[in-house]
Amino acid sequence: MNIEDLTAFAKAKGFFWPAAEIYGGAAGLYDYGHLGTLLKRHFEDAWLAYFVEGNRDYYLIEGSNMLPEKPLVASGHAAKFNDILVGCSKCHTFYRADVMLADMRIDVAEGASAEEIDEIIKKNNVLCPKDKGELMQAKEFNMMIDVSLGPEKGEHGYLRPETAQTTYLNFFREFNILRKSLPMGLALIGRAYRNEISPRQGLYRMRELNQAELQIFFNPEKFEVDMAKYKDVEMTVVPYKTKKQVKITAAQLAKEYEIPEFYAYHMALIDLFYKDVLGVPEERLRFLEKGGSDKAFYNKVHMDIEVNVESWGGFKEVGGLHYRGDYDLTSHTKGSNQDMSVNIDGKRIMPNVLELSFGIDRNVWMLIDLFYTVDGERKILKLKPWLSPFVVSLFPLQNDDKINEETEKVYESLKKRFKIFVDDSGSIGRRYARADEIGTPFCITVDFDTVNKESKDHGTVTIRERDGKTQERKKIGDLAAFLESKTKFQ
Amino acid sequence: MNIEDLTAFAKAKGFFWPAAEIYGGAAGLYDYGHLGTLLKRHFEDAWLAYFVEGNRDYYLIEGSNMLPEKPLVASGHAAKFNDILVGCSKCHTFYRADVMLADMRIDVAEGASAEEIDEIIKKNNVLCPKDKGELMQAKEFNMMIDVSLGPEKGEHGYLRPETAQTTYLNFFREFNILRKSLPMGLALIGRAYRNEISPRQGLYRMRELNQAELQIFFNPEKFEVDMAKYKDVEMTVVPYKTKKQVKITAAQLAKEYEIPEFYAYHMALIDLFYKDVLGVPEERLRFLEKGGSDKAFYNKVHMDIEVNVESWGGFKEVGGLHYRGDYDLTSHTKGSNQDMSVNIDGKRIMPNVLELSFGIDRNVWMLIDLFYTVDGERKILKLKPWLSPFVVSLFPLQNDDKINEETEKVYESLKKRFKIFVDDSGSIGRRYARADEIGTPFCITVDFDTVNKESKDHGTVTIRERDGKTQERKKIGDLAAFLESKTKFQ
Repeated sequence: MNIEDLTAFAKAKGFFWPAAEIYGGAAGLYDYGHLGTLLKRHFEDAWLAYFVEGNRDYYLIEGSNMLPEKPLVASGHAAKFNDILVGCSKCHTFYRADVMLADMRIDVAEGASAEEIDEIIKKNNVLCPKDKGELMQAKEFNMMIDVSLGPEKGEHGYLRPETAQTTYLNFFREFNILRKSLPMGLALIGRAYRNEISPRQGLYRMRELNQAELQIFFNPEKFEVDMAKYKDVEMTVVPYKTKKQVKITAAQLAKEYEIPEFYAYHMALIDLFYKDVLGVPEERLRFLEKGGSDKAFYNKVHMDIEVNVESWGGFKEVGGLHYRGDYDLTSHTKGSNQDMSVNIDGKRIMPNVLELSFGIDRNVWMLIDLFYTVDGERKILKLKPWLSPFVVSLFPLQNDDKINEETEKVYESLKKRFKIFVDDSGSIGRRYARADEIGTPFCITVDFDTVNKESKDHGTVTIRERDGKTQERKKIGDLAAFLESKTKFQ
Repeated sequence: MNIEDLTAFAKAKGFFWPAAEIYGGAAGLYDYGHLGTLLKRHFEDAWLAYFVEGNRDYYLIEGSNMLPEKPLVASGHAAKFNDILVGCSKCHTFYRADVMLADMRIDVAEGASAEEIDEIIKKNNVLCPKDKGELMQAKEFNMMIDVSLGPEKGEHGYLRPETAQTTYLNFFREFNILRKSLPMGLALIGRAYRNEISPRQGLYRMRELNQAELQIFFNPEKFEVDMAKYKDVEMTVVPYKTKKQVKITAAQLAKEYEIPEFYAYHMALIDLFYKDVLGVPEERLRFLEKGGSDKAFYNKVHMDIEVNVESWGGFKEVGGLHYRGDYDLTSHTKGSNQDMSVNIDGKRIMPNVLELSFGIDRNVWMLIDLFYTVDGERKILKLKPWLSPFVVSLFPLQNDDKINEETEKVYESLKKRFKIFVDDSGSIGRRYARADEIGTPFCITVDFDTVNKESKDHGTVTIRERDGKTQERKKIGDLAAFLESKTKFQ
C-alpha cells in the first residue's frame, strides 16, 4: 500500500482519520475511531505486559501534558528543540529544511545549523519546490507549543515535547517513596506535542503523538542483566562505525562493537518484542546506530528501531533505545536546585538513564501496513490475535428466533473476556470477508444444528480461523478456553 | 481529612502531587505517581466495563487534544465558555467572581453576567479578600487554552475544553461505518483543558483534567430502555422544581417529575455504579437537578452527580447526566456544512444526545477521601478490591533462601493476572500496616511451613484480609481462583 491507500483504508474501516475532519481536518492531528482505538490499546497493553508489568522494579506513572517553562529551559528544549525553517519569498510556503532537501536527494546532516542549510541551498541552487520562488534565509524554529496558564498575562508554559520529561521530573519523589534502590524503571504512556513544520506521511510526523516509554534509572557502576538469557538472540544492526548492515548476536555486539552489555540485552528484548509479540518479519526489522552529529549530544549510545514499511518507502524509525547518561537528572538538578543524586551503599551517585521509547501511532500505522494482505479475492489484515481490534466476529446464520437467542447467549458468555463483534447482515461469505479485512482472527457461526436438539452437533458452533480458513465445530462451553489460549502471547 | 491532609497523604504514599514539583509545582496541574496511576486506571477499567464494554451499540474512540478554531466557534465555546474575572486594583490578584463571592457566602447565580457581578460587588461593598483593595470592573474571561499550529503566524486552535467535542466531531463517520442505526454510543477517556482562574481544592478544579464520557446518540422519537430492570432503584434526588431532597425510585421520578424514562433509567444505572462498583455509601450520594440559569441552555434535563466529600466540605459534583437535545450535532452541522441528520426508517432525524460525564480526577480524590479510615492504631484505605492499586502484598516471612525462592515462585505465578507488591522490609506488622494504608486487600505470607515438606501446612501460605484482619491458610495453587473471585465486581 502507499500512503493514500492506507489512509483511505483506515478511514473507511474506522481506524483513524484527521481530527475535525468535517471541518476539513487539521494537519498533523488525528482521531482514532473504534477499530483504531482497540488496535492502539492492544498495542499498549502488549507493550505494558511485555516491558513493564511483572517486573517488580518498574512502575507506571502519568502526568500533566502542560508544563511550566522552567523545566523545559533546564532540559534544553527551550533553546535547542529546533528545526530549521526555510520559507519561499514568493508563495510564503514554509518547509522543514532537512526534509525538503532530503526529498530532493540532497545530503544534509541531522543536526545541520541554519548557516549550514543556507550554504547547501546556495551551493545547490535550491528553489521553492512549489513555485520555484527564491528561498528566504533559513532560521531556527522551536518545535514546542506554547501555552499561557492563568488569567491576564498568565504564566508561560509548554505542552511537553516528550513524555520522558514527566518521568525525569518525578524520579526523585518516586525513588524516595519506593525502594530507594537501583535500577528503578518508570514507564509512561501518554501524549507529546511537536509543532511540526510540515506534518506528513500519515501517522509518521504528527503534531500530537502518543508515546510509550520506559526510563530505567540505574547505577552506572553496576547495571546487571541476565545476559545468558538473550546472548544468542540474532539481530540486524547497522553500527555507526561501519555503516554496514550486519546480522549479529547480542553477545557479539557487546564484544565487538563496544556496546555495553546492558544495552545489548535491551536490544535483544526489543528485538523479540517486535518479532514475537508484534509479528514483524525478521528481514523488516533493524537497529540503526546514530553517531556524530546525527546523535543527540547527551546520548552515549543511540539506536533507532527501524521497520521497513512499504507506505513510508523503506526503513523508518518506530522507536529508539537511548543510553542517555546522567544528562537529564543533572540538568534538572541544576535547574531546580534539587540534588537528585542518590545514596547507594554509602556512595552518592547520579543515576544514569536507559530509555526505551516507542511511537505508538507509528507502530499502529506500521502494523496495518505490514499485515494488510491481498490474497486473490481475499483482503486480510493478518494481525496477531492479541492485537486485532476484535477477537471474534459472531454470526447468527439466519434471522431465526432460536438462532438469535442462542447467539445472544454465546455473546453474553464471552463478552466480558473478549472483544466480540456481532454481525448479522449479509451472506456468511460477506461477513467472513468483513471480519478478514479488519483482522478478526476467529468467526463463530450459530446455525440450525447448534439449536437443534436432535442434531449430533447440538450445542456446538462452527469456528473458522482467519488465515487458514479452517473450520471446525466446537462445544460452546469450550470456546472461552480456546480463545484464551489463542490470545495470549506469553 | 481536610484538603491539606489528603494532599499530604497522596504525596507521601505515591498517589499524586503537583506537576513539576521540584520546580515549585504548577497551579492546577498534577502528576500521578505509581499508586495513583493504578487507582486511576482501575477506576477507568471499572467505568469501561460497567458502562461501555459488553454493550454492542457502544464504541470507544480517542482523539486529538488540540483542535482547530472552527469547531469550537461552532460549538459556542469560543464565545461563551467564559468565567467572570475580577481583579484587585491594588495587588492585581485575579479571582473567579462566582467562587470569590460564594466563599464570602454572597449568593450568585451560576450564569451571572459581568454586569450582574459588578452590581453584586457594589451592593455588598466587596473588596479584595487579600488586601481589601478595590476591585476592578468584572469582565468575561474565556477558559479555553490557545495554541498556534504550524510555523510563523500559524493556525489558531485550542486545547479541547471537553472530551465530548471529539465525540460530536466523529459521530457522523462512525455512524456511517458502523450499524447506521440508533441508539449508538461513543465513549472516550481523555484529557480536557480549562484555564481556571484559581485552581484549587486539590483535584477538584484543575487546568488539565481527565474525563470519562459516554455520549449516547438516539432517536428522540424512540429511545427504548429496559425500565423494568431499574424501576425500583431508589435514589436521592434534589429536583429543581422543589429544591427539596427526596428518596425516590426511578419509576416514580419518571412519573412525578416529568423526567423522561430513558433519563431516569440512566440515573439508576449511574446510582448503582456509585453504590455497587465504587462502594459509595447511599447517604453520601445524590443527584442535583439544575434548572433556570444554573442549567446550560442547550440541556433539556441536567443533573449533577454529587458525593458528600469531607475534604471538599460537603456535596460536590463528580459527574453529570445531561440530556443535550440536538444542540451539538445541529451546531456542527451549521459550522461545517456537513448535514449530520441521519436516515432512520425512511425519515431524516437529527440524533439527540444523552451524555454521561465523569471527572476521573475528582472521582480518584473522592475515593481516597471516602475510604481512608483511621481505626484505633490502624490506618486503612478501604477501597473495593477491584479499585485498589495492588491486590496483593506478598511477604517472605524472613530472609531465608528457601522462603525467598518460594516467594519468587508465587510472584511469578500470579504477576500476569494481579497487581502484586513484594514487600520484604521490616516486621510483618509493619508490612501489614503499609499494605493497609494503600488499600491492598490481601496480604500473603510465605513462611517456614510453606517450604517445610514435613509440615502439614507445606505448600500453603497465610492470606490475610484487610478489613476483617482474618487470616487463613490456602494452598498456593488455589490463590489465583480465590483472588479472581474477589476482584470481579460483576
